Amino acid sequence: MTSELHPLDDALALQPAGPGQFAGRTTPSYWNMVGPFGGATAATLLQAVMQHPDRLGEPLSLTVNYAGAVAEGAFTVHATPVRTNRSTQHWTLSIVQSGTDGAPAVTTTGTAVTAARRETWSATDTPMPQAPGPDTLEPVPKGLGVAWLDRYELRAVAGGLPQRWDGGGDNSLTQFWMRDAPARPLDFCALAGLADVFFPRVWLRRAHRVPAGTVSLTVYFHAGSAQLAATGTGFLLGQARAQEFRNGFFDQTAQLWNEAGTMLASSHQIVYYKE
Amino acid sequence: MTSELHPLDDALALQPAGPGQFAGRTTPSYWNMVGPFGGATAATLLQAVMQHPDRLGEPLSLTVNYAGAVAEGAFTVHATPVRTNRSTQHWTLSIVQSGTDGAPAVTTTGTAVTAARRETWSATDTPMPQAPGPDTLEPVPKGLGVAWLDRYELRAVAGGLPQRWDGGGDNSLTQFWMRDAPARPLDFCALAGLADVFFPRVWLRRAHRVPAGTVSLTVYFHAGSAQLAATGTGFLLGQARAQEFRNGFFDQTAQLWNEAGTMLASSHQIVYYKE
Repeated sequence: MTSELHPLDDALALQPAGPGQFAGRTTPSYWNMVGPFGGATAATLLQAVMQHPDRLGEPLSLTVNYAGAVAEGAFTVHATPVRTNRSTQHWTLSIVQSGTDGAPAVTTTGTAVTAARRETWSATDTPMPQAPGPDTLEPVPKGLGVAWLDRYELRAVAGGLPQRWDGGGDNSLTQFWMRDAPARPLDFCALAGLADVFFPRVWLRRAHRVPAGTVSLTVYFHAGSAQLAATGTGFLLGQARAQEFRNGFFDQTAQLWNEAGTMLASSHQIVYYKE
Repeated sequence: MTSELHPLDDALALQPAGPGQFAGRTTPSYWNMVGPFGGATAATLLQAVMQHPDRLGEPLSLTVNYAGAVAEGAFTVHATPVRTNRSTQHWTLSIVQSGTDGAPAVTTTGTAVTAARRETWSATDTPMPQAPGPDTLEPVPKGLGVAWLDRYELRAVAGGLPQRWDGGGDNSLTQFWMRDAPARPLDFCALAGLADVFFPRVWLRRAHRVPAGTVSLTVYFHAGSAQLAATGTGFLLGQARAQEFRNGFFDQTAQLWNEAGTMLASSHQIVYYKE
C-alpha cells in the first residue's frame, strides 16, 4: 500500500541539519512567479519551530519578513528559541540560501512566539460575518497561471477577482471560503499558509493589476491544536481588507473563522505595490 | 542658555557601542510596573535603526516581541541590516542586558523594514471616524500610578477607562485623542510609542482589571517624515479594538490618524491576560 504525500506536507518536509537548523527545498506545487508562495514560506518557518526538540507550547504569533525571493532548490531554516519563560517562548527565524556568488544570503527573517494556553474567560469581539455556505457557491476557477493557487479551494462570498480590469473598483473587502486542495486536516502550518491566500488588495480596490508582493506578514493564532483538529478538513471563512494604500505600500488586515464560527487566526501584512 | 531635553529624547538617547550596537539605559519617566512602557521599548529599537549609519529609507514596519521585562539600568540594542535591496532594507533587532547571573539575557527581539517610498496612486479604505475635537474633551486624569501614562496627553472620545469595575463591559473599542506630554514634534519613534498607548482591551471589554501585558507588537508606518513633520505637535486620533479573547491571549488592532484625517500608522498586538 502506498499513501500519497499531500503537497503541503511535501513542501514542509524538513530534515534536521544541526542545532536549530533544518534543511528543506522548494517544490513546484507552491511556486508563485519568482519564488514560492509567501504562505508556504511562512508555513515552512513555522514547521521548523514545530519540529524543534526544545519547543514549548503551541504557536501564538508568527512574523515573516520577505527580504528576497527564495530561489528554486535547497534552503536552510534557522529556528532558535532565544528565551523561554514559564508560559511563553520567543523564537528568531530565518531562511538562508547560497547566493549566486556562493555566499550565504538571507532570503527571509522572522520571529515567533509559542505559548502554553490556559482556560480563562474568553469572548469574541468580531463575530463571523453572515455568508452563504460554501456548498452554495461556485469554486474560483483554477489554472490562473500560478501553481500555488491550485493548492487551494476558494469560493468567493464577496470581493472575488474583478471580472473586468477597468479601474472601477471602490473597496478592498474580500470574503472567501477556503481550504487546502486536496482537502487536508487543518494544523498550524496550514493555517499560516491560508492567512496569505488573498490576492493583492490593490487589485480589488482599483480593479487594476499592478505588480505587488508581501513585505511582512504577521499571524496571531487564537486556536489551540484541539480546535484545529475539530475543524478538520472543513472550510474556513477568510476575510481581508486594506486600510491604507500610500506611496507604494498598503496594509491588509484579515480574519479566519471555521465553519462553526470560531475565529482561528487574525493576520496582518504590509505589501509593496507599483505605480 | 540651557534647553531641557524632552523625556522621550532622554529615554531614546543611545550611544554607539560597536558595529550594530547601541548603549542605552532605562529612565524613570517611562517606567511601567515591572519595566519600561512597551511603547518606549519599541521606540528604542526603532531609534537604533534610525541612528544606524547604513540605514536606507524610512520605517515601513516594526515588530517587537517582549520576551522579558527590561530591568532598570543599562542595556544594549542590537540592530543589524541583514539584507538591503534596491528599495527595502530588512533589520533584525534585540535588546540584551546582563542577567542576574551576569550572563547576557535577551529581553526583547524584533524585526523592522525600512523603505524608500515613491509617489504612486494612493487611497484610504479606513477613513478617520467622526469625533469631537480634542479641545472640546476633558483630559484623561494623570497620576494613575504608572509614570509613563503621565508622558501622554489623552482625551477619550469613546471607550475610556471604565468608571466602574463592575463586570458590565460589552465591547472593546477605544478612541483617544493623544500626543506626547509635554508636546513634542512627531517622528517615527514617537509614533511607535503612541501605537502602544491603549490600556488592555480586556479591561474595557470586561470592566474588570486583570493582569495583562503585550507579548508582540507590530506597527506599519503609512506616512513619511514630511507628513510626520506636518503633523507637528498636533493630536492624533487613535482607535483600538480587540477581535478575539481566548485562553489567556487577546489581539488588538489599532489605527492612528492625524487631525487632518491622514492615517499615519496601523498597528496590531497580541496580549497576555490572566483569568
